[in-house]
Amino acid sequence: MRRLINNGYDVVEEMLEGYVKAHRDYVELLEHDNRVVVTKKKSNKPKVGIIIGGGSGHEPLFLGYVGENFADAAVVGNVNTSPSPEPCYNAVKAVDTGKGCLYLYGNYAGDVMNFDMGAEMAAEDGIRVESVQVKDDVYSSPNFNERRGVAGDIFVFKAAAAAAALGEDLDEVKRAAEKTNFNTRSMGVALSSSTLPATGQPIFEMADGDMEIGMGIHGEPGVRRTKIKPADEVVDEILSYILEDGKFTGNEEVYVLVNGLGSLPLMDQYICYRRVEQVLTEKGIKIYKSLVGNYATSMDMVGMSITLVKLDDEIKKWLDYPCDTPYWKVK
Amino acid sequence: MRRLINNGYDVVEEMLEGYVKAHRDYVELLEHDNRVVVTKKKSNKPKVGIIIGGGSGHEPLFLGYVGENFADAAVVGNVNTSPSPEPCYNAVKAVDTGKGCLYLYGNYAGDVMNFDMGAEMAAEDGIRVESVQVKDDVYSSPNFNERRGVAGDIFVFKAAAAAAALGEDLDEVKRAAEKTNFNTRSMGVALSSSTLPATGQPIFEMADGDMEIGMGIHGEPGVRRTKIKPADEVVDEILSYILEDGKFTGNEEVYVLVNGLGSLPLMDQYICYRRVEQVLTEKGIKIYKSLVGNYATSMDMVGMSITLVKLDDEIKKWLDYPCDTPYWKVK
Repeated sequence: MRRLINNGYDVVEEMLEGYVKAHRDYVELLEHDNRVVVTKKKSNKPKVGIIIGGGSGHEPLFLGYVGENFADAAVVGNVNTSPSPEPCYNAVKAVDTGKGCLYLYGNYAGDVMNFDMGAEMAAEDGIRVESVQVKDDVYSSPNFNERRGVAGDIFVFKAAAAAAALGEDLDEVKRAAEKTNFNTRSMGVALSSSTLPATGQPIFEMADGDMEIGMGIHGEPGVRRTKIKPADEVVDEILSYILEDGKFTGNEEVYVLVNGLGSLPLMDQYICYRRVEQVLTEKGIKIYKSLVGNYATSMDMVGMSITLVKLDDEIKKWLDYPCDTPYWKVK
Repeated sequence: MRRLINNGYDVVEEMLEGYVKAHRDYVELLEHDNRVVVTKKKSNKPKVGIIIGGGSGHEPLFLGYVGENFADAAVVGNVNTSPSPEPCYNAVKAVDTGKGCLYLYGNYAGDVMNFDMGAEMAAEDGIRVESVQVKDDVYSSPNFNERRGVAGDIFVFKAAAAAAALGEDLDEVKRAAEKTNFNTRSMGVALSSSTLPATGQPIFEMADGDMEIGMGIHGEPGVRRTKIKPADEVVDEILSYILEDGKFTGNEEVYVLVNGLGSLPLMDQYICYRRVEQVLTEKGIKIYKSLVGNYATSMDMVGMSITLVKLDDEIKKWLDYPCDTPYWKVK
């Protein structure tokens, strides 16, 4: 195991302790619940509370996107494990300003169950909480509603947060999330597993030199396992799935994310981005803006994913809305 | 090899192509020299030109720090190899506004030779170019002037760039760099080698489970090789070298960087930062600001380094000066 940790069972607490100290201008832990990271950059008028979360091990997702005009709180579970209902509920109590809250998280059964229980607890206090499960991993299911959430999360969160910052009500904020999600498609490739801190072992076996296109960030099965192909071929194959699924015809405008899963060098990510740009340009698809880097990882997994968001003026307005967090700033 | 590239000899050109496309609001390649990344956010008044550079494979160093009120150009060499004199010279021609230029780069023999030749070529055109070699790796030599430059680079670059943006002349800009460098100390730990794209092989052998404190980012020898220790012990040992070398007495104020070398998860980096904060607080050293993340890497090397910058009001002014680049924004 090539990790630099102390006790493998303390990683989440110790990471959170370090995170809130390093970014003390932005965030703090909730006093009575150290699994809830809350913004210090509170809006001075009532707004819908934006609460994101999920298992740890995907940093900077989720906690890295708590800040000004973005998430008001992140609820943090153990590694690859949903947070329990209590911190989901505590996050609502901490950020609700009377306009209700929106839970946003990747579509995984454990998260759905726990956030739903948090919402029920909040309902007993008379606070309305709605939920949007992000579904962007095109290979995880042909059925949109059964898809898992991966790096596309950040666009859905951003859109909802912008709508909330604009003063919209809960229904409208939820619509922003759902509309953006419906226009967001991702797919990835894994060249290794990540290493679980508690065991020091990989989650799954992947021989050095092998890769699996379409694999999920927790090792969920992909298209097939092969020897590692040249970057251009990998990008071409991933894009072919995304473009077909998204029914791209060639006049769209898109926001692009080439996302590193943890251990893929930035060098390789930019080489992949280069090919994404070539392919999209060839097809007449216009790149409006791009992000390249480790935005949603799986700890030390080697791999990357590509996300395309099909844009219209409304989605652009949300994604361009100024925000300030440690890991995504728009000015 | 777990890399996602095309031909191993094309990685730098392809990376640069991707980089300038992804960040087209910030930078472009020089038309007649595709190894020079220049800012599109030019100052509208004459200023000292800030030119940084070195070998590739340390992304986001160097190209990631070209932008507004930061570097005006980055000169890009092959992987772990100094750029040749021609692009060093071309960068001067591209950014000089009549006030001269400052070369800033890590103190490695190849870089010194090539940048010096670039400066001589510029001198023939009547353009004054000065150089500052960053020396921050405390374990690389007991003699300050023989030290290598590692992640502390970014603070030295930032200070010089701020002085330039403030309209200072070349001597004063150089003084800002030298003063900040003199107050900057770094040391790292490697848990693996990086992988050379051209060969697909590691630069050096490191067994899974081993680590070497004090190792350089190209595999230069460190203190000793041992089994991986708990993060807190590693941080304690690194800090003991830095604090002793910097003659810290306990009343200083510092800027802290916990820098990932490529493949160390953010989770681990924040766990390390947590310990840095504990140790410094215990010693009465005040943390003014902090950075955590992959600021200067060695591709897919697993490891991290710690940098402390001892602050006074002047260094604070430089490091707090607003800047906007893809990889470091201060507002």
